[in-house]
Amino acid sequence: MARRCVIARLVPWLHRNWAPRRPLVRSAGDGAFRLPHTGWSADAPIPAGAVSAEDADLIARLAARGTVRLHFTLTTKKGPEAQGYNVIGDLKGSEHPEQIVIVSGHLDSWDLGTGAIDDGAGVVVALETAELLHKLNLHPKRTLRVIAWMNEEMGATGSDAYAKEHAGEVPNHIAAIESDLGAEHPLGFHVKMSETAAKQLSPVQDVLKLFGANLIRLEPESPETDIEPLAGKGVPALGIWQNGLTYFTYHHTPADTLDKVVPEELRENAACMAVMGYALADMLEPLAK
Amino acid sequence: MARRCVIARLVPWLHRNWAPRRPLVRSAGDGAFRLPHTGWSADAPIPAGAVSAEDADLIARLAARGTVRLHFTLTTKKGPEAQGYNVIGDLKGSEHPEQIVIVSGHLDSWDLGTGAIDDGAGVVVALETAELLHKLNLHPKRTLRVIAWMNEEMGATGSDAYAKEHAGEVPNHIAAIESDLGAEHPLGFHVKMSETAAKQLSPVQDVLKLFGANLIRLEPESPETDIEPLAGKGVPALGIWQNGLTYFTYHHTPADTLDKVVPEELRENAACMAVMGYALADMLEPLAK
Repeated sequence: MARRCVIARLVPWLHRNWAPRRPLVRSAGDGAFRLPHTGWSADAPIPAGAVSAEDADLIARLAARGTVRLHFTLTTKKGPEAQGYNVIGDLKGSEHPEQIVIVSGHLDSWDLGTGAIDDGAGVVVALETAELLHKLNLHPKRTLRVIAWMNEEMGATGSDAYAKEHAGEVPNHIAAIESDLGAEHPLGFHVKMSETAAKQLSPVQDVLKLFGANLIRLEPESPETDIEPLAGKGVPALGIWQNGLTYFTYHHTPADTLDKVVPEELRENAACMAVMGYALADMLEPLAK
Repeated sequence: MARRCVIARLVPWLHRNWAPRRPLVRSAGDGAFRLPHTGWSADAPIPAGAVSAEDADLIARLAARGTVRLHFTLTTKKGPEAQGYNVIGDLKGSEHPEQIVIVSGHLDSWDLGTGAIDDGAGVVVALETAELLHKLNLHPKRTLRVIAWMNEEMGATGSDAYAKEHAGEVPNHIAAIESDLGAEHPLGFHVKMSETAAKQLSPVQDVLKLFGANLIRLEPESPETDIEPLAGKGVPALGIWQNGLTYFTYHHTPADTLDKVVPEELRENAACMAVMGYALADMLEPLAK
């Protein structure tokens, strides 16, 4: 998910008429293919289901005519906790190896599809950032840390664990970047940082402008889920701002598959993260906090 | 289905590598939502399955790297024959009640969706033709026969039975119209008739031009399935020629639901069939055969 905003709009009449401990939601996606859209259902141990937009419309039409009874068989269950791992790789900095710039995506996905856009694309883009610096023989001053976060979808426990384990090194984290809004054309970055820091990005914007990805938008909250624990501790946080034309159509559905990724747009995202990652890792002074 | 053309493109490598008595096909629809597209699988009593475009692509990618084994559980079975009925209603002709113009759609649909565009729309358009003549207090010379054909999808047995039962009255059938290509904007009619007959439609085209539905295209075969038995015996056959922009995206999938029908376009189709049906039922001389 992007920004914990999934499963949002409740069909109003359902909300009014349903026993409050058994929520039923209209799928949050905008597709018209009768695919229920899955997602996180908070921590309450109650059965919850999403119905497709078409079926929600049908229920609403029937409800407008009188009482509607629905029979559901919900087979969802919460399994036992299992061990998982963030996957982390460092390109060591040439002058300040202890200073870290994170580039990242998350490893897990909802199992209806194969998670190509949420968030296979983000992981690929982060890996490609390191690959590009290597190919171009660039050795930035600071360490570029590639992270594939584990378990973003079910509560962001991977990034929570990272923040906890690295609590003492937070001041050494110069910035954290994530891509978690698919692989479509990037417009720039959503950022949570000081205005001073955002202004320092101006020369990077000039480079990103070459492929139309030069917008910087200040946000009051972390732009992405996995970098939220660090953002909460003052680390400048950046999320690639893809145009998202079809992200909410496909993500969290069975149709989140590789064919939805346009190679040229995936390359633009890799370029976007590489330019920003390299700039942050190599600039003379770290971003202002 | 429209024109018995469903489940067409076989994934070539599957075609080459699969035991010929176990066909597996790529879904014929053009949607990108990982919905297997169902359809008629001819009369051979062999298991058959359609895989979504996304999964067919995946199989093709894997096959390009080496041998692929697939495990399927196909639960399809052919049930016993059951009695079904065409639904037929006549608006009796004022001068030649024995002469018949059929306006029609088919009642049945694939049960993945609710069959709104294939072919609920066709049935509604045929019913609306009678309704419009009634509302406008028009009493054409010939009988307008509204037919909702049964069992088009599994072999067109309803229309076959009609042709058999009415074999002696075929010369009295002046024309047969069907709508079975969804409910999108109509461009005109696909027709199977003599060139002379098609030219006789010219004044009707002038009327249809008012809403952009004035094309007449001569076809070598019946434009729709249910009117094929009559067309085969020389009855002029007309199929509404919808633009079909999304017909193959939705039909025969779970997403063939009412929300896919645009009311304004449905009305255009009703107007189209009503104009043509009335003209054929009221013209001075029947269409040339």
